[in-house]
Amino acid sequence: MRVGATVTEAVLDELRRIVGKEHVHTEIEKLMVYSFDSTFQNHLPEVLVKPHTVEETAAVVKAAAQYGIPLTVRGAGTCLSGGPVALEGGILMEMTAFKRIIEINAAEGYAVVEPGVVTNELIAAAEEKGLFYPPDPSSSGMSTVGGNVAECAGGGRGVKYGVTRDYVLELQLILPDGQCITVGNKVDGLTGWLDLPMLFTGSEGTLAIITQITVRLLPKPQAIRTALVQYAQLDAAAHTVSAIIGAGVVPTTIEIMDQMTLRAVENFLQIGLDTSKAAFVLLEVDGEPQEVELQLEQVIQICKENGAVEIQVAHDERERAALWKARKSTSGACGKINPTKIGEDIAVPPANIPKMIQAVKEIAEKYRLNMVVFGHAGDGNLHPNIMTDKRNTEEMERVNQAIDELFARALALGGTLSGEHGIGFMKAAYVLQELGRDGYLAQKSVKDALDPQGFLNPGKIFIEKELELRHE
Amino acid sequence: MRVGATVTEAVLDELRRIVGKEHVHTEIEKLMVYSFDSTFQNHLPEVLVKPHTVEETAAVVKAAAQYGIPLTVRGAGTCLSGGPVALEGGILMEMTAFKRIIEINAAEGYAVVEPGVVTNELIAAAEEKGLFYPPDPSSSGMSTVGGNVAECAGGGRGVKYGVTRDYVLELQLILPDGQCITVGNKVDGLTGWLDLPMLFTGSEGTLAIITQITVRLLPKPQAIRTALVQYAQLDAAAHTVSAIIGAGVVPTTIEIMDQMTLRAVENFLQIGLDTSKAAFVLLEVDGEPQEVELQLEQVIQICKENGAVEIQVAHDERERAALWKARKSTSGACGKINPTKIGEDIAVPPANIPKMIQAVKEIAEKYRLNMVVFGHAGDGNLHPNIMTDKRNTEEMERVNQAIDELFARALALGGTLSGEHGIGFMKAAYVLQELGRDGYLAQKSVKDALDPQGFLNPGKIFIEKELELRHE
Repeated sequence: MRVGATVTEAVLDELRRIVGKEHVHTEIEKLMVYSFDSTFQNHLPEVLVKPHTVEETAAVVKAAAQYGIPLTVRGAGTCLSGGPVALEGGILMEMTAFKRIIEINAAEGYAVVEPGVVTNELIAAAEEKGLFYPPDPSSSGMSTVGGNVAECAGGGRGVKYGVTRDYVLELQLILPDGQCITVGNKVDGLTGWLDLPMLFTGSEGTLAIITQITVRLLPKPQAIRTALVQYAQLDAAAHTVSAIIGAGVVPTTIEIMDQMTLRAVENFLQIGLDTSKAAFVLLEVDGEPQEVELQLEQVIQICKENGAVEIQVAHDERERAALWKARKSTSGACGKINPTKIGEDIAVPPANIPKMIQAVKEIAEKYRLNMVVFGHAGDGNLHPNIMTDKRNTEEMERVNQAIDELFARALALGGTLSGEHGIGFMKAAYVLQELGRDGYLAQKSVKDALDPQGFLNPGKIFIEKELELRHE
Repeated sequence: MRVGATVTEAVLDELRRIVGKEHVHTEIEKLMVYSFDSTFQNHLPEVLVKPHTVEETAAVVKAAAQYGIPLTVRGAGTCLSGGPVALEGGILMEMTAFKRIIEINAAEGYAVVEPGVVTNELIAAAEEKGLFYPPDPSSSGMSTVGGNVAECAGGGRGVKYGVTRDYVLELQLILPDGQCITVGNKVDGLTGWLDLPMLFTGSEGTLAIITQITVRLLPKPQAIRTALVQYAQLDAAAHTVSAIIGAGVVPTTIEIMDQMTLRAVENFLQIGLDTSKAAFVLLEVDGEPQEVELQLEQVIQICKENGAVEIQVAHDERERAALWKARKSTSGACGKINPTKIGEDIAVPPANIPKMIQAVKEIAEKYRLNMVVFGHAGDGNLHPNIMTDKRNTEEMERVNQAIDELFARALALGGTLSGEHGIGFMKAAYVLQELGRDGYLAQKSVKDALDPQGFLNPGKIFIEKELELRHE
């Protein structure tokens, strides 16, 4: 069956029967609110469905499969690659009713949560029991754990603690045929034949629907120290990042912000940032108190050797929050400059951070664009953001050329298309460049095996271009 | 095509053309040497082939696919689940010629190696540059990195550092159609759509052939401290393990050995172990020197609170090696007791270690078997070993019942079938118990997608039993 059937009255009746008519919406004003994510690309679903139980979710999946209707899943919609946008219409299934924290097990070091739990709620619940859930995407105040798993979200602590996939132990899933399965195990550090939790983590709603998640929790670090370091040269800041990583020091966080980012944040917040500086680096170390002091000294020493002009160290939680404020506001602040903000997400080996930042600056100049750069530089992850206006077709032409070049430069530096935002449809056209034909078809064969009808989140990651490939 | 075609003269000619006739063997005395791994289950391949280049490897895969002949890959043959045994005959491909360490990159923290590199050689090469490759299966002096990735090997450092899959960044693979692809990226901590390196890590030669591996390296810990702790009661030792984990302390290693293991080792080595003790726990902590001393104090305190009767701390590398000697020799020592040693491998949440050890003892008594227990208890991984004689059919009946019960008890305690040895064919019959029908079929659909002919390592993990499932 060709997926793309229209949502008929019969389908709506079936959906109403499954979740109750109060949880099925076709009103245009409701659908419009659900037509975009944080990429601000709009595509209207035909119907919005909000299940409240695993059984309802499975029944919605079965109905979509039976009628051949595209099914897209949505958490909080903070995605930056278009993942939860119903690109081909059909059913949009909102999972925010699944908001229970089922268990925080301190003895075993894990948490069991429903996919609609907000990331910060999980972090706070773990902290209450003296535990620590490290993944902290910048959207953690709004994003859901289900969305984090679907996109394999990263965050500022990735340098030391890795990303979401490093914490997923067990997933309860609805497969495309409506069966509910559990993959993985609460036992940490184990091996297995196919590592299925890792297959589904980052699969962006294209393989299965997540209905329950078990994540690993760590003991809470005893001490955290934070420093904000200012530079007169962007290049000096970039070299600091690669020097710290090269020295074998492993801070929790190394964030970079360029001058244009600082100006955007200062315009937005007016907190007295010194916007005459070329760049800020935000550093954090955590662990056992004595070790943390030692590490802080080491990284500050490296900053000085690389030309830091000012170093502020936080002495308490309030000062720490103040140092973080600029970084946490970058995305919002950049959104205020122009009507359209395109937030990109590439990653390169940390030693190539200076070259990649240089490349971003060259590309901005070449295509005459307003482009800022900030990101989790310590694990090589940068977010070049282009401030533009999508109604300006001439400029949008240059924006697209700039993005093409951005990805090409990142790949040439041994990097990857997505540091933490996922592929969605924003980057689907570039996937082939990174994977090559055979790598792409290997991935596609897994998609075809699990979702032969192709009705789960169509238009994402795997795009029609691959059809040409098969006939090469 | 039904896989299982015989290796004809035409096939042999093709193989000789590909790898050279000196690397194609059909002599029975040669094949016998390659008919078993460390499970000592014998199955003769029809031909042994030893490729020396990626191109030769790809051509062998293509030939096997074309003629419909089972293809099994072998490293050093230290596997404990039957992975490299040519269960259905056909071609056995030995990868030990791939033994180059291609790159140790200290700045970026990774190593690129060929699959035939011995694990300890990688560990030593990393150490020479001040770096650290943590996975250390007990067989690391013989096992290959390719085999470690295929089986997702663990080891004694898993408590703190995880297992092989936590270090695999990039894999070069030959797919079943003979295409060579590279999956993953040298950039660490990144996200992606499908996490393909993780799909292939632990896939036991059933999905692709590994021809090159990039692993993450860590900075080498500055200090290591080791303690051997003796107990008058096995239960006290078991409770120590769960108490340490429950306290949020993260040692590098927590190994347990019961009295029968101690006796087997003492008989074998005669190094003066006190075999009147009920159990030994071997503990190791690593990191920054001051932190390490603090951690050592903490774990020793917990040992004392849980009834330790003697505690020896190593003061130098020589003393450390002496403390490790007993643990490193367990598997060999147990092999000396009876003609047949069945080394099992289950894992449970660390809090359930006392219950699982109790279960092992009950099962040994119920089925009147010689059964020892040791293992990487800190991450919940135990190796109950049964010393028997496969010629004694009556006893083997009881052995099989005991193994059935062992797995059932591990699963009931929230555990898993394989801590680090993989599934192979030794545990294939139990996979359904852990995964359930739908979970099993989801895995099988991935296998079918990538290897529709089913010629890669047939009889492993996915066994014919699933065919009945499909018609349920």
